[in-house]
Amino acid sequence: MTDRLPHALRSDALDNRERILEAARALFAEGLDVPMREVARRAGVAPATLYRRFPTKEMLVTEAFAEQMHACRAVVDEGLADPDPWHGFCLVIEKMCELQAHDRGFTAALISTFPNAVDFEARREYALTAIDELARRAKEAGRLRPDFVLDDVLLVLMANSGIHAASPTTQVTASRRFAALAISAFQASPDVPPLPPVVRLAPQASVPKRNQPG
Amino acid sequence: MTDRLPHALRSDALDNRERILEAARALFAEGLDVPMREVARRAGVAPATLYRRFPTKEMLVTEAFAEQMHACRAVVDEGLADPDPWHGFCLVIEKMCELQAHDRGFTAALISTFPNAVDFEARREYALTAIDELARRAKEAGRLRPDFVLDDVLLVLMANSGIHAASPTTQVTASRRFAALAISAFQASPDVPPLPPVVRLAPQASVPKRNQPG
Repeated sequence: MTDRLPHALRSDALDNRERILEAARALFAEGLDVPMREVARRAGVAPATLYRRFPTKEMLVTEAFAEQMHACRAVVDEGLADPDPWHGFCLVIEKMCELQAHDRGFTAALISTFPNAVDFEARREYALTAIDELARRAKEAGRLRPDFVLDDVLLVLMANSGIHAASPTTQVTASRRFAALAISAFQASPDVPPLPPVVRLAPQASVPKRNQPG
Repeated sequence: MTDRLPHALRSDALDNRERILEAARALFAEGLDVPMREVARRAGVAPATLYRRFPTKEMLVTEAFAEQMHACRAVVDEGLADPDPWHGFCLVIEKMCELQAHDRGFTAALISTFPNAVDFEARREYALTAIDELARRAKEAGRLRPDFVLDDVLLVLMANSGIHAASPTTQVTASRRFAALAISAFQASPDVPPLPPVVRLAPQASVPKRNQPG
């Protein structure tokens, strides 16, 4: 009987951790400027419990988005490894839209900067730099339109997050059609008029250097 | 002095009406299945006041979206009047995305059906039928991709509603770039692979007959 109590405690602690991360992801999906107290309230734990597990908000952000960032890295690595850069680029758009159709926190993770969350920033920077490199190669191959910029990927991901379908299955189907439309839009074509001005969606600090003017 | 009281009352009543409509638009933007009581609560009026002004939810929906539906009709009429159907079609996409960048309730108005709100339904049906007709002409002219369906416009409008920028100006700029990408995606081109399956976003009843299979 004595070994049961610690086990129960561990399992409670695990539940708390999952509850906190779930609450954090749900709240962060709307933006990262949520007070820690609100995360605790939503998770149904005492603020002290939250701070014991995640002493700083940076740690909470990094943990909350760890899985998404891991999935994101796998997707961009797969894209970069593709011998056809346009094919790799399309794969990244498709898979990212699909990841997002399953988890709305995904865009927030890619768009927000959080300078003190070193791990989080490094992973995000890695993903954005990889997409930027893939885009450079796809442009060189003449398949990606020359006026594409990295922020267009964020624009598409934000837009994808606006698609709400009646069921999870319809959500994925809708997202798939939307990703295909986005890919069509990005494809280089002699007939297509140039795009209107770029919008900076990712905060300056996060955009890889080579994308900046000058 | 005596004429001031009725005036003040009328002005209060007007304020209530505007407050109710504003609250309704904000809530309906997330979907029309909001109880009347919640609209009253958000507007800060008593339920009795709400029901005195809008005895049925149908009347509230119709009034809340009257301006949007009017703007929408003006846009599709302008598109239909254009001698170049592809130009008219592009204009509809651009202007609808712009209307929506200013007012998020717009997509809800176009996507939701509300069979008992006769006026509302007639206006929505008018807009959708007009876009469908414009699309037919643009396809005939060889400019719109043949696998485009009316639900793709709703998909684009939903997606546009997911774009959140830091300021209203950036919002409009982001939305404009997005609309241009959507137009590129819809343009007929020999190199573009066919789109994945259609998603039915508008409820069956609302889609003009000719768009349905069989």
